[in-house]
Parts: sequence; C-alpha cells; structure tokens
Amino acid sequence: MRGAVLYAPGDVRVEQRADPRIEEPTDAIIRVSAACVCGSDLWPYRGIQQIDGPSPMGHEYVGIVQEVGAAVTTIRPGQFVVGSFWATDNTCELCRAGYQSACVHRVPMGAFGAQAEYLRVPLADGTLVATPEVPPADLIPGYLAASDVLGTGWFAAVAADAGPGRTVAVVGDGAVGLLAVLAAEQLGAERIIAMSRHADRQKLALEFGATDIVTERGDEGIARIKDLTDGLGAHSVVEAVGTQESMMQAIHSTRPGGHVGFVGVSHDVRLDGMEMFWSLVHLHGGPAPVRRFLPHLMELIGNRTIDPGRVFDLDLPLDGAAEGYRAMDERRAVKTLLRP
Amino acid sequence: MRGAVLYAPGDVRVEQRADPRIEEPTDAIIRVSAACVCGSDLWPYRGIQQIDGPSPMGHEYVGIVQEVGAAVTTIRPGQFVVGSFWATDNTCELCRAGYQSACVHRVPMGAFGAQAEYLRVPLADGTLVATPEVPPADLIPGYLAASDVLGTGWFAAVAADAGPGRTVAVVGDGAVGLLAVLAAEQLGAERIIAMSRHADRQKLALEFGATDIVTERGDEGIARIKDLTDGLGAHSVVEAVGTQESMMQAIHSTRPGGHVGFVGVSHDVRLDGMEMFWSLVHLHGGPAPVRRFLPHLMELIGNRTIDPGRVFDLDLPLDGAAEGYRAMDERRAVKTLLRP
Repeated sequence: MRGAVLYAPGDVRVEQRADPRIEEPTDAIIRVSAACVCGSDLWPYRGIQQIDGPSPMGHEYVGIVQEVGAAVTTIRPGQFVVGSFWATDNTCELCRAGYQSACVHRVPMGAFGAQAEYLRVPLADGTLVATPEVPPADLIPGYLAASDVLGTGWFAAVAADAGPGRTVAVVGDGAVGLLAVLAAEQLGAERIIAMSRHADRQKLALEFGATDIVTERGDEGIARIKDLTDGLGAHSVVEAVGTQESMMQAIHSTRPGGHVGFVGVSHDVRLDGMEMFWSLVHLHGGPAPVRRFLPHLMELIGNRTIDPGRVFDLDLPLDGAAEGYRAMDERRAVKTLLRP
Repeated sequence: MRGAVLYAPGDVRVEQRADPRIEEPTDAIIRVSAACVCGSDLWPYRGIQQIDGPSPMGHEYVGIVQEVGAAVTTIRPGQFVVGSFWATDNTCELCRAGYQSACVHRVPMGAFGAQAEYLRVPLADGTLVATPEVPPADLIPGYLAASDVLGTGWFAAVAADAGPGRTVAVVGDGAVGLLAVLAAEQLGAERIIAMSRHADRQKLALEFGATDIVTERGDEGIARIKDLTDGLGAHSVVEAVGTQESMMQAIHSTRPGGHVGFVGVSHDVRLDGMEMFWSLVHLHGGPAPVRRFLPHLMELIGNRTIDPGRVFDLDLPLDGAAEGYRAMDERRAVKTLLRP
C-alpha cells in the first residue's frame, strides 16, 4: 500500500509500505477513507522533535473495517468507524473514569502511520466507534475531525469548565482552538472570545460561535480580556498552542477560581509555583481522552448539528501529502485532509 | 495593648503596641480570645521571607466584638466571632463565586498583627462570622483552627476533589495536612493515606480519619501510594508543604484524571509543562477562601462533630510567643495557641 513517511525535517514522502495485517486477535484492519495532518505532526516536520529514522506519519483516521481479529466482538467488517490517536481497551479503571488517553493498555496510533491506504488498529472493540450506516461523502471531513482536533478542542473546553453563564476565551486559532470555540458554543457558554489575528480564522471562529475577537497577544491580549470581563478575567480559558507565552496568556486571562484547559503540547513550558498559587486558577489538560466524547460527537456530526469538517481548508489526495505539510507549516492552510 | 512583633529572624518580642481604633466605618475592633502561630509565620521567622522593619505578627484569631463602625450592620458588640486571614467584602463577584481570598477589596489581616490583645478587622460584615452564643472555653481552640488551618486544609481537600469512593493522599503532616485528613474524612473519602514519619502526627492523623500511613518520601513515597492504589495513584492528593519535592510527590502520586489540591505556599516551585501535560491531573490551589467554608465549619465545631483544636499541642499566654515560635521552628510543636 501507499503511505506517508517522514525522512527528515521538511522531507515527507508518499511511498510503498507493507500492507498491515492482523497481528493480535484484538486488532482490526481498516481501509482509510480519509486521514489528515495534525499540528503535532509539524513538531517533527520542523525538526523540533527528533525522529529515529524514517517514520510513518499520521494518527487521525476514519475508514471502513476490512478485517477483524478473532477476539473482536463489536466491530464488524463493512462498518464505517472513527478512532482516536490512542488505541485503548475502554474497560480499565482509567478508561471508565473517562481518561482513555491514560488507558493502562494504550497504544499510540502514530506508530502505525494513519496517512496511508490501510491501518492496523489495536484493541479494536475499545478504540473504534462505528456509525449506524456508512455516511454520505460530505460528512467524512466532520467524522475525521472527531478523530482528534474536535475531540481535543472539546476536551479543552470541558477541562476549562465551559458552560452556561461562562465567558470562555480561546488562546490559539489553529484547528483545535477553532473547534474549542465550537465546543464552548455547544456546551452553552454565554460569551466566547477567540484570540486570533488572521482574518480567515476569525471568520471561522465567528461562524463556530465566537461572540468576540481579540487580536492582541501577550500582556495586551490579557488586558483586552480583562476589559471584556469587568476586570476579572474569563471564567474559562482554553490554551491550544503549547508555548510558554500562550500558557501564561491563558493563565493570566483567567479569573481567580476560573479554569484553564490546556491541550497544546507544552514544549519548553515552565510554570512558576508562586504564580500558580496566587492565580487561584484550576489547571487541567494533557492528551485528550477523545474516546470519551466520540459517541456524542459522532451523533452531533451525523445529525448535522455541528460541522467540524470546516476546519479542513486543503483537501488533497494522499500523494499530495508533502504539499499538505508544507501548506500547514507555512500557515497557508489551517488543516490538510488527505484522501488515500 | 500588648502584641507580638518580629524584629529579625528568630527574634519575636511581645511588647506594647498602640491600641487599634475604628478607622473606617466598616471596621470592627475585637478583643482577641486566642490567636496562634502559623506555619507561614515561620518563613519570615526563619529569614527565608524578608521583613521590612519590625512587623506585628499573626493572622489567625477569634474574639469578642468590642466596637463596630457606623456602617457595620450584621456584626454586634458582645458577639464571639471568627474571621479568616483575609478581610473581604463577601459581596463582590469573586466572593460570591466562593473565592473570597481573591476578593476585589481584600485586605491581608497579617498587616494588623492578630497575636495581640485587640485587633482591627476591616470589612467586618463580610469578614466575620459570629456564633449563636459565646461558646464554652473548651471550644475556643477549635474555632481558632477554623480561622486558617482548618479552612485551608478543608479547601485543599475540596480542591483535590475528596469525596465518596475516593482514595485521598495527604503530603505534609503539619496542622494543615492533618486537618486535610479530617476534611477528607468529613467529605466522605473511602481511604485516606497520611504521609508522615513522626509518631505523634501519625497518631493524630489516624484519629482524624486516616486509614493508612506512608512513612516514605519522594520516589519511594510515590511507589508506596501506587502500591496501595492498584498501580494507578490516588484519586485526590493534598499538597500542604510548598516545596518542589512535596509538589512533585503530590503530582506523581495522583492518577491520570485525578486532582491535586495544593495549599503549601509554593516557594521556589517550578512545574515542567510536559510533565503537567502527560500527568493528566487537575491542579488547583492557592490562598484558601476560608470564608467560603466558615459557617459550615463553625457549625461542625459548635455541635462537636469535629475537634480541629486538637492540632494545638502547645498552649501559651501571649507573653510566651517567643517560645511558641521556637517550639514550632524546632518541630517540637505542631501548632502553638497564644492567649492574650
């Protein structure tokens, strides 16, 4: 089969890879309907995160089940399925508590390379969620978004305690930040402030439910959030970037007693204990337990309540992966969808 | 009047100070029935926190109202009252949200020196809570504990989401840690692990409701907590020390999705972003909004459901303040009560 492989910073190639096969009785093999490029794929693409030789890429996927192992009982060939970037048993104590991303048997899907024609999915019964019917083509991007960016943005909004009566601010206007806006709107937030200085992203944020746009960053951005919240700060702030600046912008934009939900992978972030102590904020985040939210999100997508697939602004055949990475790296695209 | 004043590290003197007077119409003057020495008083006593000349000491107090300003409407002379270490209006949006320690009009009581015969309390209506009757003498230590250490330990347990079905671990066996054990028990925790290597403190922890004692610290302490929790870590961990070691011990003892409640004043603590990200814990803490809990705690003390006054193991006249500080500094006493 064909699949995308990262050879070195900036060097993504689509080449022949071995077809995946059932290796464990709990595996499924799916034919990938669509995959995509994640903001986190850009860390190794940019050379900030080291790779150890040529690496198959991609951990977001939707597809049709081709084959299942002997121990798989709920997932069947022919089903259209969505999974998250962790394969998880969905039965251990941590999964049952809603923290599937910490499942005691978790397997990172990135190792299998979802930007490919076929994909092996371990722990298929726990990992995959099937739709009642194979969905129409126009819903594919929405389901694909649920695999990571929507689930991650949703988790961030939940971690930030977004809900009725709350003012929610979102730091970061990538796909996750934009979908955190959508999540906050769905969760009933009263006011949603998107922090963005890009016209196209501002537009999408407004369409997803943002009520205010703040273009300032850093101390000026914090001051603007305070201006909009009686000097107190937002109740709920989503951090969807993963830098020291964005994390401090998030914490300082939050009122005492408020909540910061952070999902940006925290590269080189250091939090000062005294600052955390006096801020009196709640801090929660990390790798999103997307599986917790998948059934609900897939229902909202299936009945067309939400359209998270709109974050894909570049739709390419799998063979165009190199251009897909380049466009995101150069911020010409918010998110690239790849069709094998 | 007489009051305790810190002149330099290790040098506490009880000397004549000016009698406090009503300065604002919202003030009250109370005759202090009892005050005490806080773990946080030891930071300047040990020279770790700088002082700017001779400093009146103390911020924990109970007493009888002597006089109130013209604008005070609910607090009356003759009442027995408890207040916290912040004077707060209890009406602003942050107070109403339960974060009185971030009140927009807050005044730190430490500036007034509660280890004295009389004390001026600003914002008396918002700050003070009166008992229905002047209580019997044996309840004075309990009410005094409510002024800070009990309220702080209780907040830590609430911030750590202690409750039914939860395993709670407490890092720190000072008065706050011990009272966090009591709080966790009252909040219905299933299992309470006190981390302590001092026999007298272990004994009190067990009497307050601890079900297990862990004497190990650092990585060994974390391993013991994991052993006791199916390898997952505790659901809820209270951090009541304020050092890098204790904070990391708390975070690493918590399961993914669990909660860390931290109330130790975080001296020189740095949290690594990646570590926070992958831990998937909830982190919340800071200066406790004791006022939120005071009415409930005073009821539990008044009806003798709880006896938090047992943390006082040294009871001295105010003139013995120097020995009271010394005994705590040398860890001969958990907490010193001072009677003017």
